[in-house]
Amino acid sequence: MTSSALLTDHYELTMLSAALRDGTADRRCVFEVFARRLPIGRRYGVVAGTGRLLDLIADFRFGADEVEFLRGRGIVDDTTADWLANYRFSGDVDGYAEGELFFPTSPILTVSGTFAECVVLETLILSVLNHDCAIAAAAARMVTAARGRPVIEMGSRRTQEEAAVAAARAAYLAGFAFTSNLEAGRRYDIPTTGTAAHAFTLLHDSEQAAFASQVATLGKQTTLLVDTYDIAQGIRNAIAVAGPDLRAVRIDSGDLSVLASESRALLDSLGATDTQIVVSGDLDEYAIAALAAEPVDAYGAGTAVVVGSGAPTAGLVYKLVEVEGRPVVKRSENKGTVGGRKTAVRRHKPTGTAVEEVVVSLGTPEPQPHDRILQRPLMRDGEAVPGRPTLTESREHLRQCLISIPWEGLKLSAGDPAVPVIMSGGTA
Amino acid sequence: MTSSALLTDHYELTMLSAALRDGTADRRCVFEVFARRLPIGRRYGVVAGTGRLLDLIADFRFGADEVEFLRGRGIVDDTTADWLANYRFSGDVDGYAEGELFFPTSPILTVSGTFAECVVLETLILSVLNHDCAIAAAAARMVTAARGRPVIEMGSRRTQEEAAVAAARAAYLAGFAFTSNLEAGRRYDIPTTGTAAHAFTLLHDSEQAAFASQVATLGKQTTLLVDTYDIAQGIRNAIAVAGPDLRAVRIDSGDLSVLASESRALLDSLGATDTQIVVSGDLDEYAIAALAAEPVDAYGAGTAVVVGSGAPTAGLVYKLVEVEGRPVVKRSENKGTVGGRKTAVRRHKPTGTAVEEVVVSLGTPEPQPHDRILQRPLMRDGEAVPGRPTLTESREHLRQCLISIPWEGLKLSAGDPAVPVIMSGGTA
Repeated sequence: MTSSALLTDHYELTMLSAALRDGTADRRCVFEVFARRLPIGRRYGVVAGTGRLLDLIADFRFGADEVEFLRGRGIVDDTTADWLANYRFSGDVDGYAEGELFFPTSPILTVSGTFAECVVLETLILSVLNHDCAIAAAAARMVTAARGRPVIEMGSRRTQEEAAVAAARAAYLAGFAFTSNLEAGRRYDIPTTGTAAHAFTLLHDSEQAAFASQVATLGKQTTLLVDTYDIAQGIRNAIAVAGPDLRAVRIDSGDLSVLASESRALLDSLGATDTQIVVSGDLDEYAIAALAAEPVDAYGAGTAVVVGSGAPTAGLVYKLVEVEGRPVVKRSENKGTVGGRKTAVRRHKPTGTAVEEVVVSLGTPEPQPHDRILQRPLMRDGEAVPGRPTLTESREHLRQCLISIPWEGLKLSAGDPAVPVIMSGGTA
Repeated sequence: MTSSALLTDHYELTMLSAALRDGTADRRCVFEVFARRLPIGRRYGVVAGTGRLLDLIADFRFGADEVEFLRGRGIVDDTTADWLANYRFSGDVDGYAEGELFFPTSPILTVSGTFAECVVLETLILSVLNHDCAIAAAAARMVTAARGRPVIEMGSRRTQEEAAVAAARAAYLAGFAFTSNLEAGRRYDIPTTGTAAHAFTLLHDSEQAAFASQVATLGKQTTLLVDTYDIAQGIRNAIAVAGPDLRAVRIDSGDLSVLASESRALLDSLGATDTQIVVSGDLDEYAIAALAAEPVDAYGAGTAVVVGSGAPTAGLVYKLVEVEGRPVVKRSENKGTVGGRKTAVRRHKPTGTAVEEVVVSLGTPEPQPHDRILQRPLMRDGEAVPGRPTLTESREHLRQCLISIPWEGLKLSAGDPAVPVIMSGGTA
């Protein structure tokens, strides 16, 4: 396996070189990951990627090839090269659970250690979290819009090939039922699904021949794609070939709300009352919501989910907030940034509805009934803390979190964050 | 190295299974990659990713682990598993050169072979091209907006970690001068650059101490980040520490047009007339264009370039257009799709300005003076055709292509495709 250590910005190593030389490299530092704001109109963010990030941090090593590249290019000097060859993160990581919601300034990940060992992780941490959180938030909105009907992730072809695997994982975390991506099935044990494309029908001498072949191989518990030529005839062909106990038909084009109704009526008239209708084709959360009243049984979502449905990156930053116990903060802008290590809790009504998130710098929020502590220990002395939730557990955690926010928070329309964050204490 | 064979949609293997069983798997097929339209307002697309795609196709193999996963999950039967274990693409690939421009319906990649060997490549081909073309098109607009000033790609942290490497490559193809991504430096021999973040200043007891450390390690040919506290004081500190022959200062926040002018005046008053000004912070092509009249020497672009500046995916599809020499096309929609293998040329005025792209199905365009044939043989019988352009050559090819289009094509504002595509022949 190729080392992930060069998935890193050049400047991290120039900073490292200078800090090793001037003696500041060993200063104890705290870095925090947070978003200054949510994407325009969004009411919540979703923490996603933590599980795969922790593995990547544990595996973050500069092998001989990486060190030789850096030295050969003159990016690092010999002292730094030696330091990198022995690098192993030995600090602590705390963070919100995967599947947790976040809001502007929520300290979703806190990395503590020497400056040197923390600074080199910046790009890797942000790449994983910015991507996966963006996909999970878009996917969660689609799951809400689908109102309990299953949603299938089929967007791999619209995003970079490895991003596709991460996107499938984030979508599953957010409640998608399946992915089309086989590597995601293997790597993360996510259920995969898929049947046929238009090419399969076009390959054959007739649509009936294509359907007969598919049923012969996959059985009647398959989904026949009926819109290669004429949809009504396609449905008739499907039922003629498979019989009325065909599992499903898929429609991938046209005005899906009209076609769903017409197709349902036609299927029923053919006695295929249990044959389901799967729709796909440029579906985003709004298109899914618009189909709520139609006789649709499942949605396939592609492009929109893998590009974050208008918000392809989560806007998370990795900021130095504490040096040797002293809070620090960049001052030349008025971004409301607060220095110092933060502690965060979410407050709830007795009914369980979240009312606010309290974030305190250099201290802890005064405990109140129905508080939920948001940060968990994830790594200690460079080792993963045992008991990491499974992807399935994180998926359930997100489902519960979405139940806990005020109902306005689930609206698709633009609005304020579902839960306000109250930040107090510790300006530098 | 992990096999790339599962970066594939489930349905490709169900289609394969059925086709192997019904005898259609060996039918000679032609698949084409094209975009039905450009992203809203865009005037051209840029072919990018071809170089890395050809390597991925050549390496596309189902190893024992992949086959076992597929068989174990019941995704393929034994016959299909055996076929996959012996898979090796043995067909032909033709396509537009990397760095070539494309427009709606341009057949940028043509894959010929048996149905079976071509269908399993769909997701990989589209993932690479949809991502890399999207980034390259956005990056090319930024390079145009920068009017010869260098642009540095520094967006790795805003996109998935492996997508970041591909994005750096696409941006360099499009004319970016440097990337911050070290893996892109190693993998594709792209020049990397980077100096320091705000964290480096915050780590130290004073800004002067941080600057002195950086200069001690990296020399005066470095770039000092001057906006951690007060920019004017930061510039004074930078010149006090490094002297007037400091190479550059970087400003990463605030109203960059005002700050660039003020900083230039201040640097000049300090005798640092050759010290350059690098600006960064949420720059897209419009923000870069707006700084054209300001004394800026280089731009750093992050988020906008790696997410395609509003168009994160290129909208390319992979469609079956020919079976056993017979053109085929999906009919249930009116998308203007034309079946059959296409041949494409671009026509030019005697001055070299492109006037139209002529695409002919099942034939070849009548030759005219100043035609340029757009498709090249890329693979023959599964082997790469020798003489693949280097990334540097492809970069120069794009630069020449952008010179060749009518000048309106380079405008940032929304408009029609810079070159119309005339499609003729061969409806199915």
